[in-house]
Amino acid sequence: MQAHTFFLYLLIILLTARLFAELAVRLKSPSVIGELFAGIVIGPSILGWIEPVEALKLMAEIGIILLLFEVGLSTDIKRLIRSGTKSTVVAIIGFIAPLFFGFSIAYWLFELSLLISLFIGGTLTATSIGITVRVLSDLKLANSHQGQIVLGAAVLDDVLGVMLLALLYEFSVGGGVNWINALKVLVFVSSFFVFAPILAKLMSVVIKRFHADSEIPGLIPTTIVSLVLFFAWLAHAVGAPELLGGFAAGLALSRRFFLPLGVTLRKDENFAKAIEEQMQPIISLFTPIFFVVVGLSINLREIDWASSHVWIFSSVLLVAAIAGKLIGSLFINENLASRIMIGMSMVPRGEVGLIFAELGRFSGIFDNETHAGMVIVIVLTTIIPPFTMKWFYRHYSHLLVESK
Amino acid sequence: MQAHTFFLYLLIILLTARLFAELAVRLKSPSVIGELFAGIVIGPSILGWIEPVEALKLMAEIGIILLLFEVGLSTDIKRLIRSGTKSTVVAIIGFIAPLFFGFSIAYWLFELSLLISLFIGGTLTATSIGITVRVLSDLKLANSHQGQIVLGAAVLDDVLGVMLLALLYEFSVGGGVNWINALKVLVFVSSFFVFAPILAKLMSVVIKRFHADSEIPGLIPTTIVSLVLFFAWLAHAVGAPELLGGFAAGLALSRRFFLPLGVTLRKDENFAKAIEEQMQPIISLFTPIFFVVVGLSINLREIDWASSHVWIFSSVLLVAAIAGKLIGSLFINENLASRIMIGMSMVPRGEVGLIFAELGRFSGIFDNETHAGMVIVIVLTTIIPPFTMKWFYRHYSHLLVESK
Repeated sequence: MQAHTFFLYLLIILLTARLFAELAVRLKSPSVIGELFAGIVIGPSILGWIEPVEALKLMAEIGIILLLFEVGLSTDIKRLIRSGTKSTVVAIIGFIAPLFFGFSIAYWLFELSLLISLFIGGTLTATSIGITVRVLSDLKLANSHQGQIVLGAAVLDDVLGVMLLALLYEFSVGGGVNWINALKVLVFVSSFFVFAPILAKLMSVVIKRFHADSEIPGLIPTTIVSLVLFFAWLAHAVGAPELLGGFAAGLALSRRFFLPLGVTLRKDENFAKAIEEQMQPIISLFTPIFFVVVGLSINLREIDWASSHVWIFSSVLLVAAIAGKLIGSLFINENLASRIMIGMSMVPRGEVGLIFAELGRFSGIFDNETHAGMVIVIVLTTIIPPFTMKWFYRHYSHLLVESK
Repeated sequence: MQAHTFFLYLLIILLTARLFAELAVRLKSPSVIGELFAGIVIGPSILGWIEPVEALKLMAEIGIILLLFEVGLSTDIKRLIRSGTKSTVVAIIGFIAPLFFGFSIAYWLFELSLLISLFIGGTLTATSIGITVRVLSDLKLANSHQGQIVLGAAVLDDVLGVMLLALLYEFSVGGGVNWINALKVLVFVSSFFVFAPILAKLMSVVIKRFHADSEIPGLIPTTIVSLVLFFAWLAHAVGAPELLGGFAAGLALSRRFFLPLGVTLRKDENFAKAIEEQMQPIISLFTPIFFVVVGLSINLREIDWASSHVWIFSSVLLVAAIAGKLIGSLFINENLASRIMIGMSMVPRGEVGLIFAELGRFSGIFDNETHAGMVIVIVLTTIIPPFTMKWFYRHYSHLLVESK
């Protein structure tokens, strides 16, 4: 690909993302909807200007891990741990319910095969951390009590979703499932979440030390981005999604992170501030690319809109997908408004769902019609909640007080 | 290419670039040498860890145009115009002399064909703006009187180099040369340099207007990067090298740029400061990628070091390449120290030279040995001047006073 063509692609992506985001905000919707819509408009669905070429996809991946880094950076780990039990409940029920609903509908109602039905259930399991967090931030709820529960739950069910994907993939190629392997991945991922922030914190101390010494400008952007990339790579190496590495790195560098076991490192507000200030423009540059590329990778033209089967199939699964996530919040001790808000926040599916659908189509498990139906469901779970959440927040924000 | 592999590549590039840059500075050399060397070490020449895959090359291209944007941003257009005549002299003589020397040596001394000899001469013509500017910045000379002359000359001879490349390419495929086409390109490129900064300035006014209005953060990084990408694309569209588009955009947004014809726009120091502050981290992130990728694209192993022909061939051409650039500064009215400094600054070849060499090999004009010889010459013209300039500056900086 020629550099000047790539420049054109990138600038169209950045500008349309901005334009539609501004429009979305003026129409009282979250800006992320505008960015997704920009991708749908300039992508194969409508105008067909831009193909999601490899370099764009890779920059989009950097965008999502940087967004998760930013989320980690502004997360208060104490509050995250405090909301741990509630997050776990929301995550596990919000994982099992859509899996069970999706599987049951496919297997018993539409009489699809066991493997296809399991893949359909799997596609509905994982909440999109990226979209959920963006919507919560747009509503200034990311640091709220409910936001912390949702964040913890979204992180957890992403891990569960990826593990299920690994299991189903093994099952689909080999016919059997290696539970010891699955357990090993779980142990790795859990220890990653314990040790990665500590390691990242120690590395940031080294960077701070150099920061005081170096005569060449630009230390923070290159080393902090490297740190984030390293943890994304490490997350993948232990079997977790890359974006969780970005989250772990952000958590470690947040002002509110402290090393366990009483190890104290001299806090340096200036350094923390320099990181936030210098990373902000980089994050703002890369993040929209991710959401536009998600829009680009959806081709609404591939869907046979005249087929009533597609409509029924996706409508039923959409209800299952939404109900499956709303149920989780019923099992925690919160007032009704908080439960509804938490449940709605968990509805958007994204990255992991699309990976499920892609793998399903690629390995021949999904035919075109099933794949299209699943993509419609994922898109709608992503488009609907920002509107309902925004509406709900406008009317009931006074009820979202913290209950302990 | 898998995202996690790409993350690993990128973080190795960023970290080794930093490491070798810090080492270079401690060894009293410019940091850019460290970055080039990092590319040689991790690339096919030594360790072979990293291949310059497409996504890396594209990010490197963004790096070089952003660097030129930064150069433009800190350029005083009045001083650039004031040094215009001297720049033109240095550029034209520094273009003709290496072309003539290179051609003569190849044609008469090594008895190569007309086309090969012209390509060899062409490879030696264009100064690398990127490397030259980095070395001058490292010596804090980028904004000096000499720096402005060199900058103007480097911009001009890049244009000349690219035009020659276009002519030679036509000649090599068709046998003839279309002078009208060449003239058209020259007219386009010249008008680009007159109108692009004005257009960019007007666009920045629109961005500033939005900046005051927008509720979504991150307007400056996305729109200013888009602006730079647009002018890079536009530069290519009129037949100029992309990086000159970055330079034109930077020039327009610099605090010292004023619209002609008495059109006044309200100056806003805060907006200019916000642009500089927010673009700095992005530029610092992308720029090292360019220099590392230049190092990566050189394979020292391909060179048959035992062949005395390669040594003689490249030594003679190296002398021609250095002498050809030093001569230019003899024709301008400066003191001897300034002339030597300007001459040395013009020596580094880079992007355009490598493009010549690549096209020569690709189209079968250069055999492997000739290509290797040319690459050695380009590498050495890049590696030597920073050392000699630094040494010269340490001993004679007091002589580099402005003469009018």
